[in-house]
Amino acid sequence: MDTTELGKRVLAGERRALARAITLVESGRADHRDQATALLEQVARAGRQALRIGLSGTPGVGKSTFIESFGLMLTGRGLRVAVLAVDPSSSRSGGSILGDKTRMDRLSRDPNAFIRPSPSQTHLGGVARRSREAVALCEAAGYDVVLIETVGVGQSETVVSEMSDLFLLLLAPAGGDELQGVKRGIMEMADLILVNKADGDLKPAATRTCADYSGALRLLRKRPQDPDGFPKAMMVSAIEEDGLEDCWAQMQALTDWRKDSGHWTGRRAAQAEYWFSEEVRQGLLAQIESGAAKAQMQRLGLLVAQGRMTPSAAAREMLGQHLRA
Amino acid sequence: MDTTELGKRVLAGERRALARAITLVESGRADHRDQATALLEQVARAGRQALRIGLSGTPGVGKSTFIESFGLMLTGRGLRVAVLAVDPSSSRSGGSILGDKTRMDRLSRDPNAFIRPSPSQTHLGGVARRSREAVALCEAAGYDVVLIETVGVGQSETVVSEMSDLFLLLLAPAGGDELQGVKRGIMEMADLILVNKADGDLKPAATRTCADYSGALRLLRKRPQDPDGFPKAMMVSAIEEDGLEDCWAQMQALTDWRKDSGHWTGRRAAQAEYWFSEEVRQGLLAQIESGAAKAQMQRLGLLVAQGRMTPSAAAREMLGQHLRA
Repeated sequence: MDTTELGKRVLAGERRALARAITLVESGRADHRDQATALLEQVARAGRQALRIGLSGTPGVGKSTFIESFGLMLTGRGLRVAVLAVDPSSSRSGGSILGDKTRMDRLSRDPNAFIRPSPSQTHLGGVARRSREAVALCEAAGYDVVLIETVGVGQSETVVSEMSDLFLLLLAPAGGDELQGVKRGIMEMADLILVNKADGDLKPAATRTCADYSGALRLLRKRPQDPDGFPKAMMVSAIEEDGLEDCWAQMQALTDWRKDSGHWTGRRAAQAEYWFSEEVRQGLLAQIESGAAKAQMQRLGLLVAQGRMTPSAAAREMLGQHLRA
Repeated sequence: MDTTELGKRVLAGERRALARAITLVESGRADHRDQATALLEQVARAGRQALRIGLSGTPGVGKSTFIESFGLMLTGRGLRVAVLAVDPSSSRSGGSILGDKTRMDRLSRDPNAFIRPSPSQTHLGGVARRSREAVALCEAAGYDVVLIETVGVGQSETVVSEMSDLFLLLLAPAGGDELQGVKRGIMEMADLILVNKADGDLKPAATRTCADYSGALRLLRKRPQDPDGFPKAMMVSAIEEDGLEDCWAQMQALTDWRKDSGHWTGRRAAQAEYWFSEEVRQGLLAQIESGAAKAQMQRLGLLVAQGRMTPSAAAREMLGQHLRA
């Protein structure tokens, strides 16, 4: 199948075509990259937009259960839902829920859901681009909601936030009255904090945790993209499918406000510029990561390590050969 | 004065020449950069090495008092001490101690001490290179100890750690029995954690805090560069000049062990390679940060923001013009 035909089928919403298109954008081969760029240009012309929801949470908070319950609630309303993962870790053992579709058994069998495991890849820059392009393909394929999940390793939340319209932070009830070591930077990205497992014995702890985070959110500086009451902490029980409708209602209210106020469009524009700039930067850096340039880096690096050249002089030599005159 | 003469005077330990040489490496002018590179090559040939001590701590822990007391203790032993700051923040209000030499009044008047305030600069990459080069100049000027201070904004600890032989984390006694929100990554960099203000009313709290951190350090994975008992938490009182001798004895013991075991040399070699690689990366990225390339980035960025080009296609166009064929 040629790329144009593949693009048409993606636009027609064919799942197999979508899967194949994502495989194409994930490929590292230069000829595949050319095809991927053409494909993305082609499908972008349709101008379709999904609601992109970023979701972060440490292992054990119940992300897979939440995605399954929340996804099924959405498909139950007639929406088409795609689930993608951004996992910069090379091994799957770290907690990527999507390495194993069986953990979202019901959702994965739902014809209105599309689940794509994370590509195995260690380089966050590469993961980011491919994930962003996979999101664009899901939008083109007519999905209404794209859930982008990350396990929260290092900078991956930032990456996911930069490709999301809304950012959710999923937490488990805490034992005491302490905040769960959530980094301030991640709190500041969140539009909704969802305290999961608000069921059974854990309900009192969930209530307390939710109150703690509500308090913490009030201490953050007001962001221009938030109407009154946002960001907000809420309780859900993914396993009992409780609170999911309210959670969705809040997301819709926030989305409507941002669309009316222009923040939605502004954020999408800023994100597109960000990714353009990132891709240029990655491209510039990639020059020294293969072939003769890589060998040259290694040769000079050895001289520097041996103290036979200063870092600056070696860098000067390298750049002299790799900057466009 | 020509650069060669300046280099000679730096090697002769002339303070004014050192100050001037640091100003030269801090300059952004292209002709200054050429001179700076030549100067650094010249002085590197002397092969002098100081003990480079990185020091981090949030505002209020008493960094300036510690540097003054510790520095005076060292000069009292006949050692020559240089103090530099790595401050990536553009404004000084954030807590750079070295914006104001008067806070280290006695040390700044000591003929065996050299204090250099942080250059005002927002770009961490640029700050890093210049700081590293300033360290090299201080070594060449015959200083025995170079203290490199950072206020701990974002990644600056990593930057300082990459130019230090030893890394100290200065803390204040905590109110309760909690760890003071020190990021794990920073804990993992520390060779010594110094709980300052172990004097007067705060002594019991300092004792508790020190015990807490000793416990926390034992939970970290053993690093190959540490002999038994390191990294270690200790109490000091900078204001009462108490514990500073012991602190210095520990640093020397650690340094001796690392020199004997080869870790010292290995670390210096790895750091030199790291800085070479960083400088090449910064150089590659700098291509799009000025002149026609910057204007082109802005033009394409606007098209991307308007949705008239995809990020990938715009990046492709940009890279097509800026990668060496």
